[in-house]
Amino acid sequence: MADDQDVSVQPARQRDAQQAMLERTHDPARVLALSDGVFAIIITLLVLEVHVPELTQGQTLNEALAEVRPSLTAFVISFVLAGMHWVAHRDLFALIRRADRGLVWLNILYLLPLCLLPFGAGLIGSYEDEPVALRIYGLLLVLIAAMRVVIWRYATNRPHLLWHPLDHRQRRAGMALSLFPGLVYLLAFLVARAAPGVSLAIYAAMPLLYFLSITVLRHGRQRVQEYADFT
Amino acid sequence: MADDQDVSVQPARQRDAQQAMLERTHDPARVLALSDGVFAIIITLLVLEVHVPELTQGQTLNEALAEVRPSLTAFVISFVLAGMHWVAHRDLFALIRRADRGLVWLNILYLLPLCLLPFGAGLIGSYEDEPVALRIYGLLLVLIAAMRVVIWRYATNRPHLLWHPLDHRQRRAGMALSLFPGLVYLLAFLVARAAPGVSLAIYAAMPLLYFLSITVLRHGRQRVQEYADFT
Amino acid sequence: MADDQDVSVQPARQRDAQQAMLERTHDPARVLALSDGVFAIIITLLVLEVHVPELTQGQTLNEALAEVRPSLTAFVISFVLAGMHWVAHRDLFALIRRADRGLVWLNILYLLPLCLLPFGAGLIGSYEDEPVALRIYGLLLVLIAAMRVVIWRYATNRPHLLWHPLDHRQRRAGMALSLFPGLVYLLAFLVARAAPGVSLAIYAAMPLLYFLSITVLRHGRQRVQEYADFT
Amino acid sequence: MADDQDVSVQPARQRDAQQAMLERTHDPARVLALSDGVFAIIITLLVLEVHVPELTQGQTLNEALAEVRPSLTAFVISFVLAGMHWVAHRDLFALIRRADRGLVWLNILYLLPLCLLPFGAGLIGSYEDEPVALRIYGLLLVLIAAMRVVIWRYATNRPHLLWHPLDHRQRRAGMALSLFPGLVYLLAFLVARAAPGVSLAIYAAMPLLYFLSITVLRHGRQRVQEYADFT
Repeated sequence: MADDQDVSVQPARQRDAQQAMLERTHDPARVLALSDGVFAIIITLLVLEVHVPELTQGQTLNEALAEVRPSLTAFVISFVLAGMHWVAHRDLFALIRRADRGLVWLNILYLLPLCLLPFGAGLIGSYEDEPVALRIYGLLLVLIAAMRVVIWRYATNRPHLLWHPLDHRQRRAGMALSLFPGLVYLLAFLVARAAPGVSLAIYAAMPLLYFLSITVLRHGRQRVQEYADFT
Repeated sequence: MADDQDVSVQPARQRDAQQAMLERTHDPARVLALSDGVFAIIITLLVLEVHVPELTQGQTLNEALAEVRPSLTAFVISFVLAGMHWVAHRDLFALIRRADRGLVWLNILYLLPLCLLPFGAGLIGSYEDEPVALRIYGLLLVLIAAMRVVIWRYATNRPHLLWHPLDHRQRRAGMALSLFPGLVYLLAFLVARAAPGVSLAIYAAMPLLYFLSITVLRHGRQRVQEYADFT
Repeated sequence: MADDQDVSVQPARQRDAQQAMLERTHDPARVLALSDGVFAIIITLLVLEVHVPELTQGQTLNEALAEVRPSLTAFVISFVLAGMHWVAHRDLFALIRRADRGLVWLNILYLLPLCLLPFGAGLIGSYEDEPVALRIYGLLLVLIAAMRVVIWRYATNRPHLLWHPLDHRQRRAGMALSLFPGLVYLLAFLVARAAPGVSLAIYAAMPLLYFLSITVLRHGRQRVQEYADFT
Repeated sequence: MADDQDVSVQPARQRDAQQAMLERTHDPARVLALSDGVFAIIITLLVLEVHVPELTQGQTLNEALAEVRPSLTAFVISFVLAGMHWVAHRDLFALIRRADRGLVWLNILYLLPLCLLPFGAGLIGSYEDEPVALRIYGLLLVLIAAMRVVIWRYATNRPHLLWHPLDHRQRRAGMALSLFPGLVYLLAFLVARAAPGVSLAIYAAMPLLYFLSITVLRHGRQRVQEYADFT
């Protein structure tokens, strides 16, 4: 075949072609396109759980907003949590140069609990005092956080997938930042039965906690280097 | 470690790698992908509030359209307002070369009230004469406009985030164009209780007003330079 | 000001920077990102109008499909029509190098009736024999086609927006292909009252007609040159 | 005309311009943008079929989850199947350099049954024991798989569309991997009437089967070369 002849005549060119092919099949561009699409849809689908209330004539703005307050609270919390996870996803993939088979599939499994977030938001929007609703919501968040830890470990253990290898301290820093939300969600899950209000408050406070912890770590004396790359 | 050795042997190369890393972690590409995704979904989700009416046999086109007119009006107004904000978002980010932590988070907070727009459109589609519906709608628009002002200030105050620094007059021009819709929405919010019809008319006229004001400013004698970059 | 000094010291560099700025503000990338997002959402939102039927035990596949047939027909027709318009949008923007203010806004106005397509599909899915439903659907399609004609004229009349200027025959060919669907939709709109079935058949046949007409024009003896660029 | 003069004066430049035009009109970028958008929306729209259950006070987590179990099962199966098809779509288009007219249209027809997947998921979520629901779901999956086979054949038969031509064994390997899911779906379709449970189990097991078969083929002794490019 013509193709086989090329191999013997132009081995260098063939190697270049194989290298180019390898780069194309491992290009993470579409992984990011799919993920950004999913994040964009998740945060906008959340609004479908905020239903237009039955307004009565002469109702004040406060009364009208009071009717939709629980689902509005669920919307805002879920929106900011999804935003936080998008920021972390963007931070991670800024390190990644090539997406291999494992990373592609792990990313799909990461998107799975994320896609259930509007369902979870609908649950706590309808039943914000019910422990079971808060526990299902917490379960989803724990799964998202767990998949994030798995992806971080997978990618940073494989230097050929990265733009430049991370040293031990950088990897530990990223792992700590990935584990941290998961543990907080787990806490909110565990206290949901005894104190539903505390559970909801933890979900609401999580993004702020995360933001502050990065800020402190970035500007702390010794560890500024490792945390400087996280948004 | 191998990585530490590299530092001492090839300081220049290390610096280049750090610079490349900095550019990658500050690349605004995914911020734009998320934002364009959200805008695309917002303007298409709006149609879900236009419900298929119950048609009766022999009904004329006008009668059928009359049934869905309020929600169709809410759709068109919200569509064009969202389009106007997308155009402004595109104008702003054409100036931006790097997205730092603050900009990434401010952009997420900008998308928050934007994602509630279909809810607001559903409200005025169902209750177009109710002051409270028009006020909630106005509140969302004021929040969107306020976040736009905050982002404009944040980005243009940080020349290292821009392709080229703006001078004082350009920054003032962009600020004026960002403040202008916010003030008009505030007016519509304030008159909603006394004159709901006027409030709705202001929302409908806003995009035209905005378009005309840029046109006038671009072609006015002295200020053509500063407004030439706005779409 | 520092910036003003730069102008006098380095006029050439300043000119380059202005040229680069011009290219960035006229980059059509985000116009395409928004449009592709809208098209992707439109064709997937259409499925929301196909409702899960009430199945009874022992029902055959044919009986079950018969229940959803009208909305499935509306789905398939609308899907293929939207696909056809996406193909035409892609053909047009392959010619376009820069998006100016007019083109950005005309594209938004083109997306407006397109976003109402799921509403139109819901209408003919529920009332496929009702002339008024078929007329509203036709009206939407006529508006989409009309905006396409306007955009074609606008862009091809401005050579500085194009990668390379079109000659008279190419412009006429593109205009004919843009006008053609509009006229067919208008016909379907006009016959909807007298013959609803014919109207629906025209909508269904349109994509095939369009596809065939390009095929014939491309492979016809004399006009192959002008139509070769259309998908 | 000025344009015609250019042709005679600068034939080489004209040829370059024509080549550049050809590359632009055949750029697959927007085909991928539309497809990624559709995949992202499909997997997130699936969640709309998981309805918020009516929780009763003091209900356990297990009881609450039991209520939504059928639609949750349908969600997870459909999500992973859609993910699998996205991975295969990405593998295929990593080979493709240019999208011609046929490929653009075949890809749209591939997206058609894919967009109906949320409807199919809704069906088996509501009627997981009904043979007819399982058969409609199977029909959709067979259509998706069939279109995938058609696209694989179309693209790999046209070397000018590819980055580098595939040899006979690579083409056969890709064809086998495309045919394989189709045949399994057909089996699930055929046994749905006699054994609904088996049918559902086959849908659930398909992604794992696919993943394992690629793994085995990649690491098998002789065929490692051909299957190495599939994710």
